[in-house]
Amino acid sequence: MHSIDELKNLVAKELSETSLKGSPKDLYDPISYMLSLEAKRLRPVALLAACELFDGDLKHAVMPALGIEVFHNFTLMHDDIMDNAPLRRSSQTVHTRWNQNIAILSGDTMFVKACQLMMITNDKVLRSVLELFHETAIQVCEGQQLDMDFETAADISIDDYLHMITYKTAVLLATSLKIGAIIAGADATNAEHLYEFGKNTGIAFQLKDDLLDVFGDDKKFGKLKGGDIVANKKTFLLLKALELATGDDKVKLNSWISNSSFNAAEKVHAVTEIYNRLGVEKLAEQEMSRHFEKAIFHLNQISTPDLKKSVLRGMAEKLMVREM
Amino acid sequence: MHSIDELKNLVAKELSETSLKGSPKDLYDPISYMLSLEAKRLRPVALLAACELFDGDLKHAVMPALGIEVFHNFTLMHDDIMDNAPLRRSSQTVHTRWNQNIAILSGDTMFVKACQLMMITNDKVLRSVLELFHETAIQVCEGQQLDMDFETAADISIDDYLHMITYKTAVLLATSLKIGAIIAGADATNAEHLYEFGKNTGIAFQLKDDLLDVFGDDKKFGKLKGGDIVANKKTFLLLKALELATGDDKVKLNSWISNSSFNAAEKVHAVTEIYNRLGVEKLAEQEMSRHFEKAIFHLNQISTPDLKKSVLRGMAEKLMVREM
Repeated sequence: MHSIDELKNLVAKELSETSLKGSPKDLYDPISYMLSLEAKRLRPVALLAACELFDGDLKHAVMPALGIEVFHNFTLMHDDIMDNAPLRRSSQTVHTRWNQNIAILSGDTMFVKACQLMMITNDKVLRSVLELFHETAIQVCEGQQLDMDFETAADISIDDYLHMITYKTAVLLATSLKIGAIIAGADATNAEHLYEFGKNTGIAFQLKDDLLDVFGDDKKFGKLKGGDIVANKKTFLLLKALELATGDDKVKLNSWISNSSFNAAEKVHAVTEIYNRLGVEKLAEQEMSRHFEKAIFHLNQISTPDLKKSVLRGMAEKLMVREM
Repeated sequence: MHSIDELKNLVAKELSETSLKGSPKDLYDPISYMLSLEAKRLRPVALLAACELFDGDLKHAVMPALGIEVFHNFTLMHDDIMDNAPLRRSSQTVHTRWNQNIAILSGDTMFVKACQLMMITNDKVLRSVLELFHETAIQVCEGQQLDMDFETAADISIDDYLHMITYKTAVLLATSLKIGAIIAGADATNAEHLYEFGKNTGIAFQLKDDLLDVFGDDKKFGKLKGGDIVANKKTFLLLKALELATGDDKVKLNSWISNSSFNAAEKVHAVTEIYNRLGVEKLAEQEMSRHFEKAIFHLNQISTPDLKKSVLRGMAEKLMVREM
C-alpha cells in the first residue's frame, strides 16, 4: 500500500519516462507542455489506489493510469478551445500559445495515445477496461456538449446541472477507480461500489469548485475569483439563486445576467451579495456533503479491510476541504 | 465472394442500422449528417474484401469496417475546420452548418464511436486489430500536421510530399485491408503484402486526386477546378514544377505563389500553362503508375487463388481511371 503522495510521485515519474514525444514538433510539443503543467493527478492516483485496495499488481495498472491522465488532458485541451480560455493552471492554453489548429490536432493525437496506454494491461481484462473507457469518453463528450447547451438554454434545473457535471466531471473519476479495481480482479459488486464512490466524490468535487470560484481565496485558487459569475456560468450557486430569488433580488440578478456591458468586479460583488442573502453557499455545501456522504457509504460497502480504504477515504476528504 | 458494389451496399445498410444517434442533439446530428453524405466507402469496402480474400467470416469484420469509416469521417470533420473548408462533397461542412465547437466535439465523439466499433470482433484478434488501428490513427494525425507544416515550409521535396500523403491518406487504406486480413486469420506475410498493396494504392489515389484538381472535369470532380493552385497547395504537380522550372517560367511561378492578391481564374490558367509546358501532368501520371504497379506486385505475392484477388485488383484499377 502506498500513500497518495507516493502514488502521485509514481505517476509523475512514469509520465516523464513514457514517450509522448515525437515529430512533427508542433504535434508533440503541446502534448509535453500540457502534461508538464502542475496538476493533482487525481484520476491516475485514484486508479492506482483502487488497484492496491484489491491487492492488484501496480505494474498492470500504471500505463492505464497514465492513459486516463492523458485522456483527461486531451479533453482539457479541446475544452479550452471551446471555452475560449486564455489560461489553464495559470499558464497559457495550447490554442493561445500555439494556435487553434494545433490544439485540435494535438488533442486528437493525445486521445489516440491515451487509447494506446489503456491497452498496456492484461489480456484478461483488456475488453472490459476498454469498453468502460470508451463508454466514459462518450459521456464526457456528452457532458461537455450539455455544458455548452446550458449557456443559452433557459430553465436549467438543479437536476439537469447535476446530470451535466456527473458526465463532464464525475464519471471519469468513477471509471478510473473501477478500472483499477477491474485490473486487480475485484468482483463486480465491489467494483460497482467503488464506481459509485468515485461518481459521488466527483460530483462533490465539482460543487466544491463552484464554491471556490465565488467564496475561495483567489490567490490559492489560481484563477480570478468570480469568473463563473462574470460568465453567467450556470453553476449550482446561480441556478439555486435563480430558483430562490424573489422581489428586488430577482430583478437585480436577472439584470446582471442579461446585461452584456458591465464592470466585472461590480458584477461579482453584487451577485455575491445576492448569493449571501439567499444563503446559497450553505445550500451548495449541503449538496456537496450529501454526495460526499453517499460516496463514503459506497466505500464502506466494499468488502475489504477498513484500514485499506483509508487512502481513498483520505483522498475524498482532502478534495472536500481543499482551498484550490 | 461479393462484388465491390455488393460490399458497398452492405456498408450502407449496416451504417444506417448502427446507432450513432443520441442526445444531446447538437453532438449527434452532425455525426449522422457527415455519414449521410455521398461517399465511396472505399476503406470499409476494402476491409471487407480483404476479409473475403482469406475466406473470413464477414460478420466479424462488418463493425470494424464501419469503425474505419467513422474514424475517416472524424478526421475529415476536424480537417475541414483546420483547412477552413466551406464544402465537403458539395455539401456544407459541419463547422459551417453548425459551428466550430460542435465540429470539434462531434468529431471527438466520432473517434470514440470508431474505437467502439473496432472492438466488435473476435477476442483472438482484438489486441492486434486495435494496436494497428491506434498506430495508424497516430500516423494520420502526423500526416495532417505535416500537411499544415508544408503550407509555410520552404524546400519541400517530392520525398517529403510522398511521406506526408502516405501518412495522411495511404496508411488508412493499407490498415483497412490488413485488419480485414487479420480478422480472417491470414498469415503475417500475406497480411503485410496486402498492407503494401493498400499503401501504394493509396499513394496513387492521392496523386490521382492532385491530377484531377487541375486536369479533371470540374463538374464531375465536385469541387472547383484548380483549388490546389489557388491555395498554393504543395502537391506533386507544384513541387515538380518548382523543381523543373527555369527562366521565365520560374519567375512567373514564384510570382503567382508569392502574390497574395490575384484573380483566381487567371492564376489557375497561368499556372496550368506552366504545368503544361513543364510536362508535370505526365510526370505525376508516371509516379502514379509506379505506385499502382508496386501495389499490384504486392497483390500478386499473396498466396491465394488469383481469381479471388480480382475484386481488390478491380478496386485499385477503378481508382486510377476515375474522373472524380
